[in-house]
Parts: sequence; C-alpha cells; structure tokens
Amino acid sequence: MTTATAFPPVWLRDNCPCERCRDPRNGQKLFGITDLPADLTVRDTSTVADAVTVTFGPDGHQGVFSRAWLDAQTSRSAGDGRTETAKQLWRAADFDGGLPVAEWDAYLADDGERSRVLRAVRDLGFAVLHGTPTEEETVLAIARTFGFPRETNYGTLFDVRVEPNPSNLAFTGMRIAPHTDNPYRDPVPTLQLLHCLTNAAEGGDSGLLDGFAAAALLREEDEAAFRILTTTLVPFAWSDATTSLRADRPLIDVDAEGHVREVRFNNRSMQALRLPPDATTAFYTAYRRFAEIIARPELLLTFRLDPGDCVVFDNTRLLHARTAFAESGARHLQGCYADLDALTSTLRILEESA
Amino acid sequence: MTTATAFPPVWLRDNCPCERCRDPRNGQKLFGITDLPADLTVRDTSTVADAVTVTFGPDGHQGVFSRAWLDAQTSRSAGDGRTETAKQLWRAADFDGGLPVAEWDAYLADDGERSRVLRAVRDLGFAVLHGTPTEEETVLAIARTFGFPRETNYGTLFDVRVEPNPSNLAFTGMRIAPHTDNPYRDPVPTLQLLHCLTNAAEGGDSGLLDGFAAAALLREEDEAAFRILTTTLVPFAWSDATTSLRADRPLIDVDAEGHVREVRFNNRSMQALRLPPDATTAFYTAYRRFAEIIARPELLLTFRLDPGDCVVFDNTRLLHARTAFAESGARHLQGCYADLDALTSTLRILEESA
Repeated sequence: MTTATAFPPVWLRDNCPCERCRDPRNGQKLFGITDLPADLTVRDTSTVADAVTVTFGPDGHQGVFSRAWLDAQTSRSAGDGRTETAKQLWRAADFDGGLPVAEWDAYLADDGERSRVLRAVRDLGFAVLHGTPTEEETVLAIARTFGFPRETNYGTLFDVRVEPNPSNLAFTGMRIAPHTDNPYRDPVPTLQLLHCLTNAAEGGDSGLLDGFAAAALLREEDEAAFRILTTTLVPFAWSDATTSLRADRPLIDVDAEGHVREVRFNNRSMQALRLPPDATTAFYTAYRRFAEIIARPELLLTFRLDPGDCVVFDNTRLLHARTAFAESGARHLQGCYADLDALTSTLRILEESA
Repeated sequence: MTTATAFPPVWLRDNCPCERCRDPRNGQKLFGITDLPADLTVRDTSTVADAVTVTFGPDGHQGVFSRAWLDAQTSRSAGDGRTETAKQLWRAADFDGGLPVAEWDAYLADDGERSRVLRAVRDLGFAVLHGTPTEEETVLAIARTFGFPRETNYGTLFDVRVEPNPSNLAFTGMRIAPHTDNPYRDPVPTLQLLHCLTNAAEGGDSGLLDGFAAAALLREEDEAAFRILTTTLVPFAWSDATTSLRADRPLIDVDAEGHVREVRFNNRSMQALRLPPDATTAFYTAYRRFAEIIARPELLLTFRLDPGDCVVFDNTRLLHARTAFAESGARHLQGCYADLDALTSTLRILEESA
C-alpha cells in the first residue's frame, strides 16, 4: 500500500484533484507552479477506503486523492508510445502469415476492426485498407477517419504518377530506394497515406522497412556508429520556384532517455555536411553502416498495391520504397500526409469505449 | 584557396553535381550511399577558373565542382535557423520603440514589407498585422499568405471567447499565465495566429514572452536546473469526449549540439510525473526556477489587440498570455495553427527574389 507521504509534497500538491486546483469541467490545472508555496509540506494524511485526504502545510490546503491512483503512480510510466520501447519491431518474414489488412467496409462499420487497423499503424507502423473507392480524393476521406490531412506545398493531396517535368523523383518511373518522406520539413509529417487508383504498369511494387528495427540493429552491431547518427545534425533541403525548405536533424533521433523516436533517411534530399574532415569521414562510415543494414533484403517487406488499396504508415519510423515501372504503363497513386497524434487519440477513444 | 583534396573523397562524391549523380530537373540525388564504392579515392583534380574537375577512384567517375561552392563549405553551417543560435532573444524593453508591426494592405502589396514581417516572426518569434478585415475566417487567409493552416481537433480555426461549458480555460474570462499551446500534441503546432474581431471587454490584454531568452537565463543562472529540464520527459495530456492527446517531451528541448530548439511550458495540461522521489524533487526545484524566471515582469511584453489586429507567433519559442477580462464584455478572437517551415520557406523565396 502506498502512503501519500511516499511522494514529495510538491508533486502531491501539483497533482491535487480538488476543485480549487483543477477545473472540474475540463480537468485543467488552475494554477502555475509559482502559485504554490515554496516550502510545501504534508502536514497530515488520513485514509478512508480509497480516499486519501492530504493536508498541506504551510497553507492548510486539503486535497482528496484516490489511493488506487496514487498506487498507479509508483510504476514506471509507459510514456507516450512514440519511441521504440512501445513498438513491435519487425522484419519482412514476420508478415509471412499476412499483412495487417482490413476491408474498408468492415473498417467503417466496426469499431473493433477500426481499432485493429489503427493499432497496427501505431505498433507496427503500418496497415493496408482493401476495397476503398477508386475515386480521386478518397485518400483524404481515409485520413479523416482518424485525423486530419496535413496540407503542404505539395497540396492537401498529391498525385504520384509520371510527370513530364518532375519536381521530385517520385513523379518518374524510377526505382525509389527505401526512404522517409520530407526530412527537409520540420515538423516532418508523421503519417503518410498512399491510395492506389490504377496500377497496371509492369513493376511499381511497394516496399516498407522498419527504420526503428534497422536503428536497433545498428546500435547492436556498431554502437559508436549509432551514436554518431544520433548526434550529427544532417541538413536536408528541397526547393522549387516557390518553395525552399530546409531542416537540420539527425538521421536517428533519440529522446532524452536515449530511446529511438524518429528516423530520417533520404539521400536524395540530403545536403552537404559541413564538419571537420575527421568528423565527416566518421559520419559517412556510420551512415554507410546504417544504409547497409537498410539494404538487407530480409528487412524489406514488398507487396503490391492494387486499385482500391490504401497503405497508411508512420513516416517517422518506416521507410518506404517502390520498384521501377515502365513509364508507359498506367500507375496512379494519390497520397497525403497526416499526423500520428490524432491517430493515437482516435485509437485511445475507441479503446476506452470498447 | 580550397583544394578539393581538403574534403574526404566520400563527401565529395556524395555531393557530386554531375547529371548522373543529380537529376538536373530537381537537384535530387539519384543514388544511395551504398551505391558508391566503399573504397573511394580522389585520383586527380584539376582547376580551371571556378571549375574544379575531380576524378574519383576506383571507378574513374568525374564531377565538376564550383570552387566558390567548395570554399563556402569550409565555413561552419548556419543550421536551419530553428535554434536559439539563429534568433534575436529579447525582453519587453527591447520593444519600447515599438512592436514589429505592419499594415495589412502594405503587407499584401509590398514584398519587402512581407519579408520584414516574416523575418520578425522567424527571428523575434512574432509580428503583428494591423488593419486586417474584421470578418470571421480572416485568420485563415492570413495564414495562407505564408503557409498552411494546421487542422486539429479544435478545427481549422478556433474561436477564443467565453463559452458556457469550456473544454479549455482559454474559453473563459480567466487570466491565462504565459504558456505555450498544445504541448500534448506531437508534432506540436509551431506557429499560432490570433486574430481579433472584437475586444470591448475590460481587461483581456495580450502578453508574449521569449521562452528561448528565459531558457538562456536559466542556463546562465542554474545550469544544473537547465540540464534537468532538457532531459526530463514531462507528460502532457488533454482530453474530451472525442479526443485524447498525450505527448511526453522535455520542457526545454535542445538539439544534438545542445542548442535550445523548442520550449514547452503549460502547467494546465502537465500530468503527474512518475520518477523516483529524489528525481521528482530535483525536477520540481528546476521547474520552479524556470517558472520564476518566466514570471519576471521585465520579460513579459504586454499589448492590446484591437479589432483587425492579428498576432503571429512561434509556438515552439514564445509563451503567450492574457490578462483576465469581464465575462460580460465582448471579446472574440479567432485563432489557428500553422507551421514555421512553410513560413521560413516563403521568406527564403522572397529574399532570393529581392
């Protein structure tokens, strides 16, 4: 049994649930930390059933805590679910039994099915919806089932098909090696959707790769290289006549506790590093190590998007790729960006009401 | 004079500007790092005027670099402009001579005036537009002059006025102490716009405070506290019937080189930390130190938004506040979120064409 006195007085007071401390309409705290006495003490506690009444000194303020809630605070936090610690890392063979897929109609009709899809995106980094309408702009309707499209200079949605004067290699028939999108943007889009309208071309298969798994392999096999990639700011840029984006971010971003939170990998838009020669050489050695891991065939999951298929994936974690296709063939995807925070929010609400 | 051999061969090759290495239509690189030989050497260089021709071993590949470009690569990178190193830190008295303001008509008509406003947002963290239309949804039109509104669960825009059953304390007449918005969101909105339609209430003045300046003061006065706030993951959350957002991020986020990149400060939505008691106490001591700096009157810039005024500010850096106002008085702002990357892109394009 936890007694309230196991917690520092300032922590208890900052979390006081009384109506003077928290707006009962929205749960938000009504005070700032400097509004609290600097010399807080716990003067007295008394427990009746689940209710722990705490009397604070020096001001005599009282709050009633739930004992169950206090007990729960003694276990380590699971965090916000965005780092490697909360994910199921994978390699291609893990999906030999099938991809995380759902039929669009079932996804729309059944909250359990919708939870399963959103959970796959959160935990595995992706899911595929089958049987969505093969009409333009459907990708936006799909995004709106769990969140909000993020408009960028590419539009609210973008067409992935062969263009005569491509502003981006995505708009050619070239093979695109595994990469994350828009590393030159900050905030980077955390989700991407790709919705297939037509795929009659020879080639043009899709690939996905778990960047967190690749980063974990790098750390296991060459910790010094891992450390270099978490601490070197890499300039990424993209520009055309009306847009000039730039962001300097590490290839592997770890949180304050050292857990991998984001991966960026895109040689196409990586700019010249300006480091002393030794640091440059060390970076490139580490970068090649990481790239060699990413190139391992056992990591790359390949599948084909058919008309009506939509893949939703975590762009801070998964790398995506496509094989080359004949530019004479008909292949047309529509894509959009969205954000993970809204998706995980939607999932939490579904799980709470289940 | 820089000779090409001052650069590691792999760096030179990764930055080779030839048409086989870079798509001339969009400047994107056509290869991945593992497509390059692992044992690259510079076999030969020759310079004619600004053209430095490099012949690589072992494959004999040739690229022609601009000598001026190579020379420029030897100076330290200015980075992406998002950290404290690129900003003009300020306190309230720095604006005794006036705020960074512009008339809406001039902003629309004159690229120089628009650059000046966007530069203020980038470098100072904010600017105010006067004389915008006092019509609803104008805030979205303003955002579209430099970027894209970011839709959230609050909508594409949100109304800031007194509500009978407020989901957020913003929608009351209460004083709101300096804070950043939406720390429970990841990615956090990097820009906020607040557009005044009506402000006839007693009170309801606006405040802005430079969070990067406050963080720099903390580092100067108590480096241990600064370090605690850069390394402690703080849980933030917000929920209502249809939304449940959570993000665990430090109050002061530094990049891999230790420079302040983002500040989060919002006791309203801060949740219970789960740390060992000693770490909890140390965190609260550091948090109070930071909060005491933020409470210094000399840091808080106060001004009044009149109808037709719109303030645009960097939500990763500035804290905003408002004084209390009579809930019977008419005060109506419309706000929206947007992102800094698009704003700085627009500014770069304006500067390049100036």
